[in-house]
Amino acid sequence: MNRIITLGEIMLRLSPPGYERILQTESFDVKFGGGEANVAVSLANYGESAAFVSAVPDNLLGQAAINSLRRYGVDTSLILRSGKRLGIYYLEKGASQRPSKVVYDRAASSISEVSADQFDWDNIFSGADWLHFTGITPALSDSAAALCLEAVKQAKAKGLQVSCDLNYRKNLWSKEKAGQVMETLMPYVDLCIANEEDAADVFGIKAKHTDIQQGSLDKEGYIEVAKELIRRFGLKRVAITLRESLSASTNNWSALLTDGKEFNFAKKYTIQIVDRVGGGDSFGAGLIYGLLNLDSDREALEFATAASCLKHTIEGDYNLVSVSEVTALMKGDGSGRVQR
Amino acid sequence: MNRIITLGEIMLRLSPPGYERILQTESFDVKFGGGEANVAVSLANYGESAAFVSAVPDNLLGQAAINSLRRYGVDTSLILRSGKRLGIYYLEKGASQRPSKVVYDRAASSISEVSADQFDWDNIFSGADWLHFTGITPALSDSAAALCLEAVKQAKAKGLQVSCDLNYRKNLWSKEKAGQVMETLMPYVDLCIANEEDAADVFGIKAKHTDIQQGSLDKEGYIEVAKELIRRFGLKRVAITLRESLSASTNNWSALLTDGKEFNFAKKYTIQIVDRVGGGDSFGAGLIYGLLNLDSDREALEFATAASCLKHTIEGDYNLVSVSEVTALMKGDGSGRVQR
Amino acid sequence: MNRIITLGEIMLRLSPPGYERILQTESFDVKFGGGEANVAVSLANYGESAAFVSAVPDNLLGQAAINSLRRYGVDTSLILRSGKRLGIYYLEKGASQRPSKVVYDRAASSISEVSADQFDWDNIFSGADWLHFTGITPALSDSAAALCLEAVKQAKAKGLQVSCDLNYRKNLWSKEKAGQVMETLMPYVDLCIANEEDAADVFGIKAKHTDIQQGSLDKEGYIEVAKELIRRFGLKRVAITLRESLSASTNNWSALLTDGKEFNFAKKYTIQIVDRVGGGDSFGAGLIYGLLNLDSDREALEFATAASCLKHTIEGDYNLVSVSEVTALMKGDGSGRVQR
Amino acid sequence: MNRIITLGEIMLRLSPPGYERILQTESFDVKFGGGEANVAVSLANYGESAAFVSAVPDNLLGQAAINSLRRYGVDTSLILRSGKRLGIYYLEKGASQRPSKVVYDRAASSISEVSADQFDWDNIFSGADWLHFTGITPALSDSAAALCLEAVKQAKAKGLQVSCDLNYRKNLWSKEKAGQVMETLMPYVDLCIANEEDAADVFGIKAKHTDIQQGSLDKEGYIEVAKELIRRFGLKRVAITLRESLSASTNNWSALLTDGKEFNFAKKYTIQIVDRVGGGDSFGAGLIYGLLNLDSDREALEFATAASCLKHTIEGDYNLVSVSEVTALMKGDGSGRVQR
Amino acid sequence: MNRIITLGEIMLRLSPPGYERILQTESFDVKFGGGEANVAVSLANYGESAAFVSAVPDNLLGQAAINSLRRYGVDTSLILRSGKRLGIYYLEKGASQRPSKVVYDRAASSISEVSADQFDWDNIFSGADWLHFTGITPALSDSAAALCLEAVKQAKAKGLQVSCDLNYRKNLWSKEKAGQVMETLMPYVDLCIANEEDAADVFGIKAKHTDIQQGSLDKEGYIEVAKELIRRFGLKRVAITLRESLSASTNNWSALLTDGKEFNFAKKYTIQIVDRVGGGDSFGAGLIYGLLNLDSDREALEFATAASCLKHTIEGDYNLVSVSEVTALMKGDGSGRVQR
Amino acid sequence: MNRIITLGEIMLRLSPPGYERILQTESFDVKFGGGEANVAVSLANYGESAAFVSAVPDNLLGQAAINSLRRYGVDTSLILRSGKRLGIYYLEKGASQRPSKVVYDRAASSISEVSADQFDWDNIFSGADWLHFTGITPALSDSAAALCLEAVKQAKAKGLQVSCDLNYRKNLWSKEKAGQVMETLMPYVDLCIANEEDAADVFGIKAKHTDIQQGSLDKEGYIEVAKELIRRFGLKRVAITLRESLSASTNNWSALLTDGKEFNFAKKYTIQIVDRVGGGDSFGAGLIYGLLNLDSDREALEFATAASCLKHTIEGDYNLVSVSEVTALMKGDGSGRVQR
Repeated sequence: MNRIITLGEIMLRLSPPGYERILQTESFDVKFGGGEANVAVSLANYGESAAFVSAVPDNLLGQAAINSLRRYGVDTSLILRSGKRLGIYYLEKGASQRPSKVVYDRAASSISEVSADQFDWDNIFSGADWLHFTGITPALSDSAAALCLEAVKQAKAKGLQVSCDLNYRKNLWSKEKAGQVMETLMPYVDLCIANEEDAADVFGIKAKHTDIQQGSLDKEGYIEVAKELIRRFGLKRVAITLRESLSASTNNWSALLTDGKEFNFAKKYTIQIVDRVGGGDSFGAGLIYGLLNLDSDREALEFATAASCLKHTIEGDYNLVSVSEVTALMKGDGSGRVQR
Repeated sequence: MNRIITLGEIMLRLSPPGYERILQTESFDVKFGGGEANVAVSLANYGESAAFVSAVPDNLLGQAAINSLRRYGVDTSLILRSGKRLGIYYLEKGASQRPSKVVYDRAASSISEVSADQFDWDNIFSGADWLHFTGITPALSDSAAALCLEAVKQAKAKGLQVSCDLNYRKNLWSKEKAGQVMETLMPYVDLCIANEEDAADVFGIKAKHTDIQQGSLDKEGYIEVAKELIRRFGLKRVAITLRESLSASTNNWSALLTDGKEFNFAKKYTIQIVDRVGGGDSFGAGLIYGLLNLDSDREALEFATAASCLKHTIEGDYNLVSVSEVTALMKGDGSGRVQR
Repeated sequence: MNRIITLGEIMLRLSPPGYERILQTESFDVKFGGGEANVAVSLANYGESAAFVSAVPDNLLGQAAINSLRRYGVDTSLILRSGKRLGIYYLEKGASQRPSKVVYDRAASSISEVSADQFDWDNIFSGADWLHFTGITPALSDSAAALCLEAVKQAKAKGLQVSCDLNYRKNLWSKEKAGQVMETLMPYVDLCIANEEDAADVFGIKAKHTDIQQGSLDKEGYIEVAKELIRRFGLKRVAITLRESLSASTNNWSALLTDGKEFNFAKKYTIQIVDRVGGGDSFGAGLIYGLLNLDSDREALEFATAASCLKHTIEGDYNLVSVSEVTALMKGDGSGRVQR
Repeated sequence: MNRIITLGEIMLRLSPPGYERILQTESFDVKFGGGEANVAVSLANYGESAAFVSAVPDNLLGQAAINSLRRYGVDTSLILRSGKRLGIYYLEKGASQRPSKVVYDRAASSISEVSADQFDWDNIFSGADWLHFTGITPALSDSAAALCLEAVKQAKAKGLQVSCDLNYRKNLWSKEKAGQVMETLMPYVDLCIANEEDAADVFGIKAKHTDIQQGSLDKEGYIEVAKELIRRFGLKRVAITLRESLSASTNNWSALLTDGKEFNFAKKYTIQIVDRVGGGDSFGAGLIYGLLNLDSDREALEFATAASCLKHTIEGDYNLVSVSEVTALMKGDGSGRVQR
Repeated sequence: MNRIITLGEIMLRLSPPGYERILQTESFDVKFGGGEANVAVSLANYGESAAFVSAVPDNLLGQAAINSLRRYGVDTSLILRSGKRLGIYYLEKGASQRPSKVVYDRAASSISEVSADQFDWDNIFSGADWLHFTGITPALSDSAAALCLEAVKQAKAKGLQVSCDLNYRKNLWSKEKAGQVMETLMPYVDLCIANEEDAADVFGIKAKHTDIQQGSLDKEGYIEVAKELIRRFGLKRVAITLRESLSASTNNWSALLTDGKEFNFAKKYTIQIVDRVGGGDSFGAGLIYGLLNLDSDREALEFATAASCLKHTIEGDYNLVSVSEVTALMKGDGSGRVQR
Repeated sequence: MNRIITLGEIMLRLSPPGYERILQTESFDVKFGGGEANVAVSLANYGESAAFVSAVPDNLLGQAAINSLRRYGVDTSLILRSGKRLGIYYLEKGASQRPSKVVYDRAASSISEVSADQFDWDNIFSGADWLHFTGITPALSDSAAALCLEAVKQAKAKGLQVSCDLNYRKNLWSKEKAGQVMETLMPYVDLCIANEEDAADVFGIKAKHTDIQQGSLDKEGYIEVAKELIRRFGLKRVAITLRESLSASTNNWSALLTDGKEFNFAKKYTIQIVDRVGGGDSFGAGLIYGLLNLDSDREALEFATAASCLKHTIEGDYNLVSVSEVTALMKGDGSGRVQR
């Protein structure tokens, strides 16, 4: 059992039932999520010791967020109660040609107003093996960026491995700002995870021969992207998820993992989507688990890709699957036959 | 902002949740709809001034129907409170090889018993640019047919453009009766909209090389149908929606628009269906909007087809999409990527 | 109107709504089902006189199970109130690459503890034409196996036709035990129904060139399986359902029926799945109906296959379709066009 | 086991969930009910052989109505499939000072358009002991009144006991018309049931010292009403339910039963109301059961009153309670302690 | 038909279904509300021309808020689209001894950041008779306070009547701040409405012999409070609602209205509560309606009190009742008998 | 923070929504509960370190039960995965005169088949202050009784305080068997908790002048019961909850606590019931908390009684209230005023 720390924001997620639009709904399904929280839940489901570091307000919503994590076994003892509000995101699920829509209401959330010195880093990293965060957290505020910097410095100093999912969010910061801030963090990162657009958005590293809107991706182009990321930041590994969005209902899904020498591409899955949010996070969690527990980068990649394939069939941000379920798919059983 | 008047029936729509059958359900989702009401809602969503002319009973159900229209911005001040009941239709949503089923209970509805002289036509058409109705309204009763005739006469006299969606309903009247009545109305119509079967059902104008049940449609055949409609009734334009029903879950969807000289066929969409009812109405509304606001017939057609493609992904009869959403799809983004 | 007796277990079926997992759900949809109960409901829906023979506890759950059958017209007057509990199965619906999961909690159910002499066989088979059971019932307990043996003996003695759906359940008994017990029952059986795996599991008769997990089936192989079943047990007919599981969301579905001389393969359907449980039972019911009412084995097979195709689009174990709906699909209308 | 025939209408009942108003609801709970259908369900729940005679349209709604009766064991084999529509009533549940509201949409229902000679009366009354109907049925239409008259004549001729619940509905007919029609039916009636207002509305027989709106009832006044009913129509027995409506949430509930000599008043219950509709019907059913099975009029009355007290705590028109549950309350256990 | 303008905030209201707590819920019922929005809906329901002046963000949530008002007939054309977020309040419904809980998340809402000069006051007050606001709006921010001041000045200058509901919210401002700001607004107010605590909280004017927590109120004390309010601010009228909170499930409800000479106390209602939020607003709306349309202060008061009594039985902030329903209760029919 | 260990069974709780009966429901609300599990959740909510010792099957249902406890902060690390099934109880919520009904299906549950030596008692009681169990656990099976005996012996040997809630369940064992087994356990118990019937059922110690069914309890009688319990078993304290069941909707609730010298009776609450199950457990938890944290027996008793009063307003077995909420009620604020 490894000890993984994830650092970031947890939000209240409000979504109309089924395919209803926000304009017509009379109720919201209540879930919680956020990039790093989602990773923590996945890892707890895989039997790892996963702790989530964050801040939530000292009210019923903050407690409900914590409860959602405890339910799936995440260690929530490191979360601060401070600040004024829990961030919210509204999710309207798309179908066919109609895209899913996300409306954020996360300004002034607890984590965006907390400072690095409110945390006890020695306690947080005691006995820990790995730190994970995403590019969303430093985008929240300058203090959140400073928090991330302090965290990665402390983690490296204490010998943890560090992973970062770039996760560019255009409504949180400009590409310029993102590039500047992320460049200060990347030197402390061992494993960089990105989706098919992030490297271009954050660092201007574009994949050739690829048209995201048309759903066509070019493998060679992403090999070059990965090489450049490694070259620029001295990373140990780069992983890039490769989504071909055929429609809001059907996506192709695969990924690339490389250490700069060996370039592994995962099996490609065609997925009928139940809930696509958290797909990238479930890949990251699967990769961390795989690198810590499996025999090769190739297996880690296939585990991560199968895990995140399954996430697309699960309601909510959290990927509620077990190691054995992921392994079964990774080994080839995608027939969906009833298991009795 | 144009002023469009639609005239017809609004019904209570009762459907079991999800894919439940009526025989097993314990609840009905409550929505409202009807060909011309649906067109009015679409146009209000596009920012037009849309008014719906109808009659509803002076009870809670009639008020609820009006409220459903007001919610989306339709002007309901022209609706009469008269008659005894609101028509109902029960909708059982199909899937895969199982077709959707509609059970009508609309006899003796308020609109079917109202007479033309109960309406103040000068007020109704004051400042109006367009009148729209469908072949369902004259089918409801002889008085409803007379109401339609009076409306189109008044509209033409006042210089409005008039559109009619043929919308043949075999449970309301015979093909013979339909043909006779519609022939009296068509001389006042500028734009005739039909689906792939209507012209044959109402006027005996059949498309060649087409087998509706097998889902194969022949473009050439529909060009001939359109030509014949224009020739027979002196129409300005004819639009025909072209649905290839692969199953209750998946349809191809396209359309033809012509002024008798230029024949435009829209992009064809393959749609994973959420709710297919109101698809034709959303095409009609999109076409009216497009003809009034866009630069060419070609653009109007693509707008109408994209709008109605999106309708198939929306729960309920009403097409709850904005101009910008339709335009995005019309311009080619059907990838369904999450919009944050 | 024929009189068909089915003998077996009825269970409470608990499933999270939609695609929720058991670990995250806050409610269960309540339905009832079981192989032979499902067959009885189908036959009652087709207008046959269908009676279900079973035992349920004398409590609210037992009564609710009976009510679910009465609702659809099954004769429940032959069901005993005895024993301590109603068996339960939990069903988690899968999607895409994630398989559906069934958790059984059926030990010590009423039917598993009842003995053959608690039933009045003369009354049960009075005026009856057909007895149907599945391989699940003798698997429940030794007394249930003895109950089945007594039933088939009595039925044959009284001149009924007997059908058996092999339905191997690995969590109820071993392949060895299944083979031994089923061999004692098969001599009384006229029609044996199996899925693509049962003959191999129960009698070691394997289809060649077939990989169930990869979803590829070989027709020739199943002809040999059917021949061998007929040869070994002197059956009148064998029917084998042929499922190609492309994913939890999409299956191909067809079947074979033979009397050892003529080998009929049904039309193959590609199905978007709503609820796949009870698919095999609905095939059995369709086949019994077809053999008793239609003109040829070929028609009976097509009826059965179309009926079970439709079952995959219906929520719950019970196949809530009418003869006319099945006939429409059997005759080729799978376009799913709205029926008004 | 006695055989009781009830004759009347069954309607679709649509009600918003909980205390929502029709103007705000997005769904309706689907139930079925009607005075005589409700009585049949109660009697079937008590183990009697109860058959419901009616007509429903030959569509999914008609079948759903029949299924709702079969579910609880009512014999539905005597129901005709004829006519065009199933009547509907909308029920908005009140609370505290806000009254429940019922909106009827029952004109032109199947039962209102059926004629007496469509029924096979010999078959209907074969082996029957009792006929029950209410004053709602003759109010539906002249043909329905004629149907009732034929039924009571046939029933008396065949030696059945006949009960009638006056159940005056002001929106179906005037007091004058009600009085005229009911006077033709009453000579065939043995047991007349009325609520605290019916005798005044239908026959002009008013209870003194009673103010319905203020919720105060005077026992003596109702003794006089009962005496007058017996005197005028030669009845064997009269029962009057006595509701003191303190609010939509709380009612007092009692009843009177007399044969003209002995005047029994039941225990009075103060009820926290879950669903008040069908309260009177459940009293009628309890009284029929009691008179047929219990030792005295006093016991029959207490059974009927306890049964109908419990109905007020059950969702839907149907009184889903057993004899043992009614008996427990009748014997004094109204403490509501959890039964494990 | 009078024209009434209300000015204030509309919020998204999120509440767990039934009596669930926020810590356990998996969904929120979605409604909208806010003191002045609630008043506008009531007045529109009464047939008045009611317009709501506010600001909402230009996103799906803002539009949904507007739609909720349009649904019930409120004129929303004066609402600005500006600012960043829609305020939210979470409501957990209490029962018996457990109080309802409200968690506000309204900081930085659109209305709190708008300035007075963004509104076109001439247009807003054109043809208007009355302006209503509450003490919540000036509490939101200094700019909101300035907005209120500008509004009342303009309204008085244009000859409107002005009403203000004190509505002290301790989490928005201190008593000191409230007192200071409200003192600047009161000179423009004709009608001041307060609950049993407001005058004490805002202006330090306490009712004697009253213990709010124990639910006992003293009439004489409130007469003194009203006199003092009139004296201090030169008001035309003061109304005070008098709630005796027996428990979260049961309240007594009455009110006082005075012009300083005549002191009217309304009938007292004991209410079984469905949803208590918006009770005070519905009183204010009823009072405005009554003063504008009824014959005397006494009738206006009884109308307002009956209207707000009914509000406690309606789900959501909005009081969805009609003039005839209020009048019926006001005239004494609180028996809750079913209305057919 | 004290460490409290509770030992017992956790069951799946299935209940129809609202007041629906099992015979009519189409869904079950899913919750989990059991006497000792409920106590653990309460104590975790109060900030104590609460661990639950039990056994659940190694399947999705067992995991879901554990998750329900983790969600509210209970330490579940001591729970064994063993045995075959999770016990179930069905709960039908009563109203007014209709009692709630519980149907148990708990035979052969994991905890009933586990043996004492499967647990590591040293680990379990390490650092623990208190052990709590109820009379339900030893009633499950002989091995469960042996498990309890071992637990109390170990606990006493390690210096813990031991509390036992008698909780007699007549469907699990006879009064004789209960008396025999409980007598072997009581010598190790410090605090005995009972409801108004337990002492009579288990030990034959009856309260005089009390009629449970009529809802009248006599204080003096219970003083004698408590004295006799202390005398017979050498207990330190006895607590007796005193429920007067006026109806299924309304109960009076109070309690007695004594050390044999001082006899404290708590304030009596009249409760409008939301969910009454777990009421006794929440009293026990409140009492343990109070005795460990408050200043006197009197305060502990008032805390326990207020806590359990609030439980009656919470859906589910678990008492989801905080110390501050209990304290507020205990100090007298039962007015249910909205807390903003």
